[in-house]
Amino acid sequence: MKHKIIQIDDRDNVAIAIEAIASGTRVTPEITAQEDIPQAHKIALCDIAQGGEIVRYGVCIGYALASLPAGSWVDEHRLRVAESPALEDLAWGTNLVPVEALPTPTISSFEGYENPHGGFAGTRNLLGIVTTVQCSAGVAEQAVKRIRAELLPKYPQVEDVIVISPPYGCGVAIDAPEAKVPIRTIRNLIHHPNFGGEILVVSLGCEKLTPERVMEEAEITPENRIVLQDCKGYGAMLDAICSMAEPKLRRLNQRHRTVLPLSKLLVGMQCGGSDAFSGLTGNPAAGYAADMLIRAGGSVMFSENTEVRDGVHLLAARMPDQETRDRLIEELRWCDHYLEAGGVDRCANPTPGNKKGGLSNIVEKAVGSIAKSGSSPIIEVVGTGECPQKRGMIYAATPANDMICGTSQLASGMGIQVFITGRGTPYNMTTVPVIKVGTRNDLKDMWFDLIDVNAGAIATGEKTVAEVGEELFRLIIDIASGRVRTFADHHGIYNDTYIFNPAPIT
Amino acid sequence: MKHKIIQIDDRDNVAIAIEAIASGTRVTPEITAQEDIPQAHKIALCDIAQGGEIVRYGVCIGYALASLPAGSWVDEHRLRVAESPALEDLAWGTNLVPVEALPTPTISSFEGYENPHGGFAGTRNLLGIVTTVQCSAGVAEQAVKRIRAELLPKYPQVEDVIVISPPYGCGVAIDAPEAKVPIRTIRNLIHHPNFGGEILVVSLGCEKLTPERVMEEAEITPENRIVLQDCKGYGAMLDAICSMAEPKLRRLNQRHRTVLPLSKLLVGMQCGGSDAFSGLTGNPAAGYAADMLIRAGGSVMFSENTEVRDGVHLLAARMPDQETRDRLIEELRWCDHYLEAGGVDRCANPTPGNKKGGLSNIVEKAVGSIAKSGSSPIIEVVGTGECPQKRGMIYAATPANDMICGTSQLASGMGIQVFITGRGTPYNMTTVPVIKVGTRNDLKDMWFDLIDVNAGAIATGEKTVAEVGEELFRLIIDIASGRVRTFADHHGIYNDTYIFNPAPIT
Repeated sequence: MKHKIIQIDDRDNVAIAIEAIASGTRVTPEITAQEDIPQAHKIALCDIAQGGEIVRYGVCIGYALASLPAGSWVDEHRLRVAESPALEDLAWGTNLVPVEALPTPTISSFEGYENPHGGFAGTRNLLGIVTTVQCSAGVAEQAVKRIRAELLPKYPQVEDVIVISPPYGCGVAIDAPEAKVPIRTIRNLIHHPNFGGEILVVSLGCEKLTPERVMEEAEITPENRIVLQDCKGYGAMLDAICSMAEPKLRRLNQRHRTVLPLSKLLVGMQCGGSDAFSGLTGNPAAGYAADMLIRAGGSVMFSENTEVRDGVHLLAARMPDQETRDRLIEELRWCDHYLEAGGVDRCANPTPGNKKGGLSNIVEKAVGSIAKSGSSPIIEVVGTGECPQKRGMIYAATPANDMICGTSQLASGMGIQVFITGRGTPYNMTTVPVIKVGTRNDLKDMWFDLIDVNAGAIATGEKTVAEVGEELFRLIIDIASGRVRTFADHHGIYNDTYIFNPAPIT
Repeated sequence: MKHKIIQIDDRDNVAIAIEAIASGTRVTPEITAQEDIPQAHKIALCDIAQGGEIVRYGVCIGYALASLPAGSWVDEHRLRVAESPALEDLAWGTNLVPVEALPTPTISSFEGYENPHGGFAGTRNLLGIVTTVQCSAGVAEQAVKRIRAELLPKYPQVEDVIVISPPYGCGVAIDAPEAKVPIRTIRNLIHHPNFGGEILVVSLGCEKLTPERVMEEAEITPENRIVLQDCKGYGAMLDAICSMAEPKLRRLNQRHRTVLPLSKLLVGMQCGGSDAFSGLTGNPAAGYAADMLIRAGGSVMFSENTEVRDGVHLLAARMPDQETRDRLIEELRWCDHYLEAGGVDRCANPTPGNKKGGLSNIVEKAVGSIAKSGSSPIIEVVGTGECPQKRGMIYAATPANDMICGTSQLASGMGIQVFITGRGTPYNMTTVPVIKVGTRNDLKDMWFDLIDVNAGAIATGEKTVAEVGEELFRLIIDIASGRVRTFADHHGIYNDTYIFNPAPIT
């Protein structure tokens, strides 16, 4: 009999329906579906008493609101969410998998662009234009059009000219304590490895986010920074930006890809539009690829505060020292307070799509979400938009919002992102490639020209987590090396950058 | 002797330097500059004792930190900011200028597009595509490119196809109390008069901001709303959006401008990049134009909570009833709390550019900012992104951030915006025209091809407030009627829309 359900952990008392199951279907020799169960939703594997624990991934995700006979649909409305683990006295270092125990990578290098300032290497060769304030965005965008048309064809080694115009810079409380978050994010975006050390900042002149806040003093030169209010009219602005761009394009044109060890690569992991398969197929496959990257000396970042909050004990257990654990607690405590001040808690995270996809609540979503970080030790925690100092598996504490998490990981120096999706999203970035991993065969059938890797074959038993994980690992290297393009890049679909600003707008 | 300084109110003990004044210059028969005074900065008109009031616009803007002899530069560092007026027991109705006392308009109609749903008329004929979530933005933008290239040329009465993709929709606390603000803003953007009643919403399918939250039930049809997750691949998404667009373009192509009374026009007033001339030249001229519009039966909206907070008593005095005053107090009290929660107060508003432009603090900035609302009664207060129900002068309570204020006024149904700037900003919107009014001759000299109206001539005595005000009034009507284009529209400089989201990101 073809498998109809998947149980992840021996301790689980629920399993996931691989396809929709009709009422009366015998799903195992012992269990018959008591009602229709939608694809990706949970079925009770035994009788669960009222108040009894619902266990998935070996973790209690909630308590039954009424008794649930074996074969019942464990719908979101039938369980009460489990409480979050306390942030006090979390044990650390209790689950440190030795790097040697991680899966052996078959490749140890990629072709990237050396970063003139050291640090992580580039995966693209771009001229990046960043505005310090949204007011300058329209002019910067017109300048980019002209540079693309008139200058770029002369410099074939430069892949593109892009503009980053965060919705920030003025009309904001720049001295509020939390303004440090958007400021450091923009500072680090300006210095992203894919821009090859070339800086072109478009300032207006009266904004609160002065260039001094986001550039080094030595960088603030007429070659690197233009102030639009100092220009004699619009034409002069465009001329000046194009004149600044040309020597930078000339230097960027000298950059070439070289074979670099994977220790120069920083890969970001993110999931969005998740479903109950995310934690079964896409995220474990991404976690496997992450393990291979770590074993090969590479670095991987994962994020999404509200999606790790309920699995914080699992993360702390993978931390080699108290200092790292304390940073994690600090970031998540901040997040608890931030949500509380807005009148919500981490349960504000799951979406209607998540729930339609079988994720009953934030605990179930969180434990599945963490799977994308694999099993290696978590050696550093950084705040939103901060650059890691260590190499290995890093927790970058950012909101889970796809655009904001992506922009934050970008600011942290990410060279390529893996995005795991269950429901499907066409999300993409201009600065780095984004590989889309789908969690279900149905999604790949539907979005055949948007999903780069199909992890759905894991659910049907056609492929193992290790097989899809290694496929993803190889694709990460191919795409980071510029040998293969994602579907979204082929179509030219891009999202803007959005920074996290927890400080007030004025 | 040519005037070197301008005193606004007889009670003022400071005046503004029209040009930079060198130390030792005799500025009036009685007063000699004691030090260099930069353009637009304040000079003491008499000896001011330590702790004495600094009075501009007849209002105390602060207290001298040390004694200031006549002829001193009243620099921002030499005064302590005055306290905000209390929000309790504000007198209302004490300064109600009868409409008949307002300046007589010379024009009483414009050529606009009737709104099929009633309410304010359109000033443009656009197909507006709105995404419910940022994830859909890349696809929507590619669709717009194709519609522009393949369909738009067949429908010459349609001016353009634009996409509005607010950074919202998912990864947000959609049930937080303050989420109502972004939700109603997006709902009202979808229904903007310039879109002629045609609705094209691009949903992803799993987002939190479901179409049900921003569209009427009857509007949610396959003609008006596409769900990308229901499409078989990227090509099908583009085909579907183009197929939805064509009948809408055909209907929009039947729209024509007709002569409409000014009562159908809603004009937004905003200032940004302000300097000490803003309250002398640009804002009073805008206020004069506003008075003419109100006298002609039109409606005008002004905003910027942190810039009216210190002049709240002046606004309350212009309100005809207690209910309106109470709404004002409610909105400003909310704003006080919002800023306090972020560790700042309304003093977080002024920018380095404001201060370089001679604005010492938020009180001085506020009183000058309010001048753009003219002198007519304020008959309604609406929250961020809400649509006014009355006709006349409206206070729309929004943040002062230029992009957010503009987007909020747009959601309120604005057909055209007047933007007064001292330092200069190229800000513009896609949905409605934005007229740029410059406050200084120097700015017009510098930005000759970006500033549409120069109010600087008021400071030099070449023109009166009434003359520039009437010039602006006529230009508002010409541009709203599609007879004249702004410089920014000519150049194609545009900013994105940004909604105000005081709720948490998850």
